[in-house]
Amino acid sequence: MKAWIINDIGQSPVLQRVDLNEVKDSEVVLSVMASAINHRDIWITKGLYPDIKTGIVLGSDACGTYDGKTYIINPGLDWGSDQAVQSRDFNVLGMPINGTFAEQIVINKKYLYPKPLHLNAEEAAALPLAGVTAYRALMIKTKPQKGEKVLVSGIGGGVALFAMQFAIACGCEVFVTSSSDQKLEKALQLGAISGYNYSNPDWAKQLMADHGGVDIVIDGACGNGFNNLVKICNPGARIAFYGGSAGKIDGLNPQLIFWRQITISGTTMGSDQDFFDMLAFINKHKIVPVIDEVIDFENISKGFNKMASGSQFGKIVFKH
Amino acid sequence: MKAWIINDIGQSPVLQRVDLNEVKDSEVVLSVMASAINHRDIWITKGLYPDIKTGIVLGSDACGTYDGKTYIINPGLDWGSDQAVQSRDFNVLGMPINGTFAEQIVINKKYLYPKPLHLNAEEAAALPLAGVTAYRALMIKTKPQKGEKVLVSGIGGGVALFAMQFAIACGCEVFVTSSSDQKLEKALQLGAISGYNYSNPDWAKQLMADHGGVDIVIDGACGNGFNNLVKICNPGARIAFYGGSAGKIDGLNPQLIFWRQITISGTTMGSDQDFFDMLAFINKHKIVPVIDEVIDFENISKGFNKMASGSQFGKIVFKH
Repeated sequence: MKAWIINDIGQSPVLQRVDLNEVKDSEVVLSVMASAINHRDIWITKGLYPDIKTGIVLGSDACGTYDGKTYIINPGLDWGSDQAVQSRDFNVLGMPINGTFAEQIVINKKYLYPKPLHLNAEEAAALPLAGVTAYRALMIKTKPQKGEKVLVSGIGGGVALFAMQFAIACGCEVFVTSSSDQKLEKALQLGAISGYNYSNPDWAKQLMADHGGVDIVIDGACGNGFNNLVKICNPGARIAFYGGSAGKIDGLNPQLIFWRQITISGTTMGSDQDFFDMLAFINKHKIVPVIDEVIDFENISKGFNKMASGSQFGKIVFKH
Repeated sequence: MKAWIINDIGQSPVLQRVDLNEVKDSEVVLSVMASAINHRDIWITKGLYPDIKTGIVLGSDACGTYDGKTYIINPGLDWGSDQAVQSRDFNVLGMPINGTFAEQIVINKKYLYPKPLHLNAEEAAALPLAGVTAYRALMIKTKPQKGEKVLVSGIGGGVALFAMQFAIACGCEVFVTSSSDQKLEKALQLGAISGYNYSNPDWAKQLMADHGGVDIVIDGACGNGFNNLVKICNPGARIAFYGGSAGKIDGLNPQLIFWRQITISGTTMGSDQDFFDMLAFINKHKIVPVIDEVIDFENISKGFNKMASGSQFGKIVFKH
């Protein structure tokens, strides 16, 4: 079969013929209909990930068929039994084991879940990694209540968009930030109440003037911009962050946090239970993932380049 | 009656005769048997607290008698109905309303709780503010399980010592830090497993070598030392901080937090329910507050000076 392989660390993946993995107990062969790219795939091709091996098929997200039925894959492997935190064995499909940017994939049946009926294969392929990350960040770590005010930073990214959609489905008022006015405008069309361009140094003051503060923050950047996220928090607010693309946080003021009883949770991906619950939530609320573009499997490098540029709004999906 | 009054902001309190407050509905007059000092009292005399008024009796903690029975006071007034966070009306006895460094105090009956039978008046007076702060930080925010490893920083302070005693009562293994080897030694005598002098830049490495990491951290300092507290966290760890005496946190690494699913909670004092539950816990486990020294009511300034120096190990109590 053909698959996109990482042959040299720091080099782009190449499309070549490879043998399918041996099929062991409880494993099946899924024919991939669609896959989707994550930041993780970019980092791996740049060598910015621990324990990278060469000769591995990239890709974590997929929708495909097995035995006449259509499934999506939970790419979070061997989470373990502790809902609070992943085990030492936890790993993500697509490094160190062969992933979804292939015509077929060998996968343990326990990681296959029925494709939501209201989604086509491309939409379903957009769901797994970003969906479960957003679900755990929002639903497990911050427990939103109807009517609460939620800020989602960096709108346009896959996790941020799912967090926005999930919070709207919970009956929350959702505000978003971005450095792109165009992305803010798109988020308003999807149901966000207000958008703030964080290139404006007064964006947090403006949000306070407009809405008086927020109860929940979902962030993937951290860095020094994190201090603005703390400042806009209402008493009792919860912040969850699933990444740190802007780096370390300087100047974090403890008084602002302890007096207002703020809780800050770090979170990454999710457990099998989180994945199951995320799918149930998607089905209940008929949520459709936001797709930036569907690209042919043969042109996967176009998707890598677009994601590396950060210009996308929604998931970049590959049609196999 | 005689009471210690703050007459000028930035000046030490003075002992003088004052009229007792008028007794309104639901209020009673408690004859104070013992009181105790908190850092808050020091900050108020230094003018380092918002909305300081002159002519007010200082003091938050007390044990006293009313109608032939002995009570302690919950000094957290008007918390409100939300367990997650105090209301805007929340205030602490002893500023802006008259406190416990007096022969008598007028107090709403709802803030009186029976003195634990296993404690004398001086021990009971040591309990309220530090006890409820420690209880909320540890029990509500970090939810310790038997056998978990707990680090309490800055041992010797009232909140830190209660947090240590409560964690030991929960069946946890407790480690402590201090800049004083003498205080570490005293904590070991009270049941701590290991003590680390944070003046040693390698203390966190040593703890990792000795114990492999901790599941819970209770801190009142923050500042840049906070990064060591994050580094020693096990996956799934919970950190609660009830103060920020070392100031802002620089260089906080988000990767260390999100990958290990660490939760960081700010916390201050506690609700009426927390106070009730703290007392039940104290009674169940027959916990006796650690008292540094009992000082006569007339010599209160000796207690202020000792607390300002930071040399105490346990609560400084005044006998009225």
